[in-house]
Amino acid sequence: MADVAATKERRIIVAIDEGEESMYALTWCLKNVISQNSNDTLILLYAKPPRVVYPTLDGTGYLFSSDIMASMDRYVSDMANGVIEKAKKLCREQSGDGQVKVEATVGDGDPRDVICDTVEKLGADVLVMGSHGYGWIKRAFLGSVSNHCAQNVKCPVLIVKKPKSTINGSK
Amino acid sequence: MADVAATKERRIIVAIDEGEESMYALTWCLKNVISQNSNDTLILLYAKPPRVVYPTLDGTGYLFSSDIMASMDRYVSDMANGVIEKAKKLCREQSGDGQVKVEATVGDGDPRDVICDTVEKLGADVLVMGSHGYGWIKRAFLGSVSNHCAQNVKCPVLIVKKPKSTINGSK
Repeated sequence: MADVAATKERRIIVAIDEGEESMYALTWCLKNVISQNSNDTLILLYAKPPRVVYPTLDGTGYLFSSDIMASMDRYVSDMANGVIEKAKKLCREQSGDGQVKVEATVGDGDPRDVICDTVEKLGADVLVMGSHGYGWIKRAFLGSVSNHCAQNVKCPVLIVKKPKSTINGSK
Repeated sequence: MADVAATKERRIIVAIDEGEESMYALTWCLKNVISQNSNDTLILLYAKPPRVVYPTLDGTGYLFSSDIMASMDRYVSDMANGVIEKAKKLCREQSGDGQVKVEATVGDGDPRDVICDTVEKLGADVLVMGSHGYGWIKRAFLGSVSNHCAQNVKCPVLIVKKPKSTINGSK
């Protein structure tokens, strides 16, 4: 990282989901973008599916009772927490002594909107994301989330593709 | 930049054209990606238009004599040299004492193919590019070069958009 970057405060958003590719993107970012001795803040961003998407999860099209909806809400919240914890663990492992400042935020809705809105709201300096979501994002939405974000956010976007031969999410 | 990146050799390709956005992307890369104390090599990549594209430059559709074609070849070569010199000057200015290793390469053809092929051939670790070409790339081709490359190259792609309010290509 150039000297300028080492002294400048930067807010780096990494979009994560339950797929391996976003964890690979996070690992790559920690190794290649984050300055351990800088004021960089890494912001983990997870987009929860909105309720309207739930019925697509099993594809039956049935209307659900409030109990089932509450269970699904819990399931989705647990999934979000699980992904964030996994990402935080990765940050601790990669940064060694925990010098990297890590924050986490969860948004509801279409990940394209959640990511673009959060980048603007937080005034991010860089957005990092995998080229495809392997989780519910891929199942629920047509089109590429990364393409949409690259076209619509104002800050630089780093798109990290997981090599097919890579094992355990690290290069 | 993380410690790992500071010791690892990385080949960073920056796709440039005669537009301001690619120069902004290069500046951003020098400030935020390149490690001055590392073994990073910055490779400036310019894609020259193939001859078949020349007639579109004036839009008349006339067939040109060999003299005119030779003049156009010289013009395009001069343009390539001019862009590369401008980019090298930027590298010297931004890196101060010239510690950054800079190489330059020129390819012929559709910039999408030139960029993707060069990334693979040189085994690049990162590809950096503006989100749009303002030069002949934009005039001659429909569709986004950056989108195509983001989808097709295997290495991480950093797409840098020039803010509308930015003056002189620096943030």
